[in-house]
Amino acid sequence: MSTEQQPSPLAAGPEEAHRQYVIDLYGVMAYGELSAFERFSSDARFSPTLRDRAEIGRLAVTEFEHFELVSAELARMGVDVQAAMAPFQASIDAFHERTRPGDWYESLMKAYVADSVSGDFYRAIASRLDPQTRAVVARIKENDGQLALLTTRLSQALEGNERLASRLALWGRRLVGEALTQAQRIGIERAFLGALLGFDEPGAQETVTAELFADLTRNHSRRMNALGLTA
Amino acid sequence: MSTEQQPSPLAAGPEEAHRQYVIDLYGVMAYGELSAFERFSSDARFSPTLRDRAEIGRLAVTEFEHFELVSAELARMGVDVQAAMAPFQASIDAFHERTRPGDWYESLMKAYVADSVSGDFYRAIASRLDPQTRAVVARIKENDGQLALLTTRLSQALEGNERLASRLALWGRRLVGEALTQAQRIGIERAFLGALLGFDEPGAQETVTAELFADLTRNHSRRMNALGLTA
Repeated sequence: MSTEQQPSPLAAGPEEAHRQYVIDLYGVMAYGELSAFERFSSDARFSPTLRDRAEIGRLAVTEFEHFELVSAELARMGVDVQAAMAPFQASIDAFHERTRPGDWYESLMKAYVADSVSGDFYRAIASRLDPQTRAVVARIKENDGQLALLTTRLSQALEGNERLASRLALWGRRLVGEALTQAQRIGIERAFLGALLGFDEPGAQETVTAELFADLTRNHSRRMNALGLTA
Repeated sequence: MSTEQQPSPLAAGPEEAHRQYVIDLYGVMAYGELSAFERFSSDARFSPTLRDRAEIGRLAVTEFEHFELVSAELARMGVDVQAAMAPFQASIDAFHERTRPGDWYESLMKAYVADSVSGDFYRAIASRLDPQTRAVVARIKENDGQLALLTTRLSQALEGNERLASRLALWGRRLVGEALTQAQRIGIERAFLGALLGFDEPGAQETVTAELFADLTRNHSRRMNALGLTA
């Protein structure tokens, strides 16, 4: 990732600015989905049973299908998909490098956390998006039957296994921490995150970012509790 | 894989025997596609460009879609997909363990060889299958636009690169050799391969297998020559 700050898109007028935000949003989503696909499908091979391999494979493939959906939107806007993804590659790669699952359970938990945190994030920005973009984002989040699958699998594994529970609680905290660190890095380098969250006044950026992060953390704790974990 | 020989399905009458052959065929296809998906999607991450990553990702996902198609057929027949795949796991895993690509080009070549050799194999058995099964096999082979993609990418890479050409020629030979070794192992342990190839008379097995393998090798040489390689 370039360390240069992006010139403020607001200088170009509100329509062009919104277009640039959408390109950034799609770019980060596209690269996020593509790399999630690669990581989960690599992990699938270590699943304990053939049935788990098939299920985690499906989960990975759904990520790839989302990547294709977002790529198609970028292409429709006349934007080069590779160029749109490039600014987010370093942060997302860093997230994955720093959170390599040590086993199958950590891989499940990573998929679970990534899915639920990105779901929270999309919900937070949805009201700021134009209807077309909102529909694309909603389409991606709606076929998340995978969250239900992951919840079931994790609950089964955790049932009566105190040691695994405390290991996965710790792992979950680390995942959220790393995700927020990289999200913050993206938010500082690219203006879109802040703009989509709607801070138009000076000084609002810090407050809104802090609120969003507090929300994400709170939601994470709630979900960990639902799994019987202390987050 | 169990080292026991399977009881001859012919003892159970021709219809039951054909059913068992189809289950075996789908089982080997399903596990082949599932593991190809996992391997290619893991390799995708090492692609030189984001565009290549997306293209190899699509190729991997197509394998997974084939796995789902074959799984659905097995389920329709009332067969447990995991049970149908299990007998082929050891041979196919061994093939992959013995042919780990050293880089991106070897990964491309592996996809190319696996696709074209399995295509040859499916063509060889197609006339022996019932219409329903033949249609499933044809559907899987027809959306192989990926062979065209792989041919283009490999030709581009090989253009004027003598060193890569001789490395990939050697690698291609090794891939075919390993594929035939594992196919032979499957053919010996499971009766279906021979039966689908139609040797009803004693002694025909060796001849037909030898002919098929000679065909596969010849086709491989022809394709390597088309890429400008000496096979």
